[in-house]
Amino acid sequence: MTFSISAHDPQSKARTGILTTDHGPIQTPIFMPVGTAGTVKAVHQRELEQDIKAEIILGNTYHLYLRPGLDVLSKAGGLHRFNGWNHPILTDSGGYQVYSLSNTRKIQEEGVTFKSHIDGSKHQFTPENVMDIQRTIGADIIMAFDECTPYPCDYSYARRSMEMTHRWLDRCIDRFDSTEGHYGYRQFLFPIVQGSTYPDLRKQSAEVIASKERTGNAIGGLAVGEPAEEMYASIALVNEILPADKPRYLMGVGTPANILEAIALGVDMFDCVMPTRNARHGILFTTEGVINIKNEKWSRDFSPVDPGLEGYASQFYTKAYLRHLIKAEELLAAQIASIHNLTFYLWLVRQAREHIAAGDYVSWKNEMVVKLMQRL
Amino acid sequence: MTFSISAHDPQSKARTGILTTDHGPIQTPIFMPVGTAGTVKAVHQRELEQDIKAEIILGNTYHLYLRPGLDVLSKAGGLHRFNGWNHPILTDSGGYQVYSLSNTRKIQEEGVTFKSHIDGSKHQFTPENVMDIQRTIGADIIMAFDECTPYPCDYSYARRSMEMTHRWLDRCIDRFDSTEGHYGYRQFLFPIVQGSTYPDLRKQSAEVIASKERTGNAIGGLAVGEPAEEMYASIALVNEILPADKPRYLMGVGTPANILEAIALGVDMFDCVMPTRNARHGILFTTEGVINIKNEKWSRDFSPVDPGLEGYASQFYTKAYLRHLIKAEELLAAQIASIHNLTFYLWLVRQAREHIAAGDYVSWKNEMVVKLMQRL
Repeated sequence: MTFSISAHDPQSKARTGILTTDHGPIQTPIFMPVGTAGTVKAVHQRELEQDIKAEIILGNTYHLYLRPGLDVLSKAGGLHRFNGWNHPILTDSGGYQVYSLSNTRKIQEEGVTFKSHIDGSKHQFTPENVMDIQRTIGADIIMAFDECTPYPCDYSYARRSMEMTHRWLDRCIDRFDSTEGHYGYRQFLFPIVQGSTYPDLRKQSAEVIASKERTGNAIGGLAVGEPAEEMYASIALVNEILPADKPRYLMGVGTPANILEAIALGVDMFDCVMPTRNARHGILFTTEGVINIKNEKWSRDFSPVDPGLEGYASQFYTKAYLRHLIKAEELLAAQIASIHNLTFYLWLVRQAREHIAAGDYVSWKNEMVVKLMQRL
Repeated sequence: MTFSISAHDPQSKARTGILTTDHGPIQTPIFMPVGTAGTVKAVHQRELEQDIKAEIILGNTYHLYLRPGLDVLSKAGGLHRFNGWNHPILTDSGGYQVYSLSNTRKIQEEGVTFKSHIDGSKHQFTPENVMDIQRTIGADIIMAFDECTPYPCDYSYARRSMEMTHRWLDRCIDRFDSTEGHYGYRQFLFPIVQGSTYPDLRKQSAEVIASKERTGNAIGGLAVGEPAEEMYASIALVNEILPADKPRYLMGVGTPANILEAIALGVDMFDCVMPTRNARHGILFTTEGVINIKNEKWSRDFSPVDPGLEGYASQFYTKAYLRHLIKAEELLAAQIASIHNLTFYLWLVRQAREHIAAGDYVSWKNEMVVKLMQRL
């Protein structure tokens, strides 16, 4: 995996480049659609590729481990072969889902025991088996097993949790470096900075993570309810320490404005369920601002979903038709809105790349942040 | 609207031809996907056109009248403009949905009063206003307002209902012939044969309907629970009477075998929710037989959904992946299965047309009926 930066923005920490994997290149900054259970919800694979122009998607280890399970994924030849997505894939470590979805979970030094949200069966994730599981799933980029602390989180818990995440990281690295991918292409392990919103913990964690000298690094534990300013402060602090010549991935973030601000702070990679989840509830991100398509005001608006955005879903369908579909609880509503929102997110990071290359990122970003967050 | 028959099968009543509307030609025999509320569930319009190769779709008057409502449809310029389907559309009269969906409905000579299944509001459908509503929706082919009797249905009820349907037909024709389409293209009214499964009533109804000399004719009240042999007997009897030079539409039918048998009896047009509804429950119609994709036996079958059928959904995705999606209740499962099943249905009628033209329809049909109904 190589990461080559082609341009730095003169007014900010923003940069644009290319991250190369055995499944092809990823232009950064990039947004990665979330394909929880091996599918980006309501979106066909060819739509991801041709309409949305996604370059990398996520899979969730917790979901894929429980269903379809490792035996099926292994027999398929890994997730790329299983779902037909022949571009890069990143998997999370499963930790976040264990904490948020499992009704009973117990976090101990050894790992986390939890019950499946599907059938209540008991399972354990450890730093070691999570590496093995991600080897079997076969993502190009795999994530270290960490604990993502909630917000707010008291200092002593945040410190103890961060220290355990660091010990888990060493175990992840040991296991990862002593094993190989199953399917003939290379995988890369990204460690995760934690430390809640405490500057000294974030600094300490970033230093530990940087010292591991992995191919790329991630920032976790943000966008969990803290004010945006605290999130940006944490990112700025951490990015001072994480090596500038390696990709930085901000996990689970966020709104269009969050993404543009974090790019200015030197972040290269993003993922979030927001564009797809909000789509299913009728919230559209458009080039002019945010639309709640369920509102009566759109019922007779026969203009395209987003006249400013190229692409089938945004151009072919009208606001009035999409509103009708979502009011009638038709599956096509989720399909159109999901393609549209993801097309918008990928357009947004493409625009960001162009403005970084052009050297006017900050002024463009400042305009866009205001525009994109207004409610239409 | 012109109907030109290009070939008759020498061994059966099957025929193939072209029905021409102001929105383009329809090759017959044809299957028409059901687009209840202005959308064929889980299928994009370009998928209908390019993957499924649909030539005409249905809309349901009851659903469209209640939501989005006539004001929106009128302002949009009709259903074609509203949903972006620029090929022929047929609307039913709303009668069937009123009887099956509305929790309280009262059938009287004047018409039917009913309560909306959405908000409980009271409405009335009459032969006259159902013509007006279908004028506003703007389908190319619109259906007479009839009563579809249940099965079994006692003789005296079936006779009285049929007689009322005939009186309603005269009112439909009066209203239809004294009004015009709203959007600059022509619409055509098809009357509907009723009479339950009573041969004398079916004969009488077919004679009345034939005497109206409309552009095309429909057979209703079948596939409501009666044995297939009774259905085929009714179709055979009715088709002896309905004019051979006009298209015959068998409403709400059916399985692949039903369709092939009815084609042999001289039917030209079909619609049914079966391919899409069954798709959402994991039942696939394939070129080798019927598959319940939820079965464990498909969990490690990495062959295409249907190797014998061209098209994205059937070729790109595997049985194991589709099974995983439906078990995980992912929206993409309904999308893939719906495209596949509809692609199969349109392939089936295309094959039928070719075999009618080639003169070997009956021998092909007899083989296919056995093959297509087997459970894999």
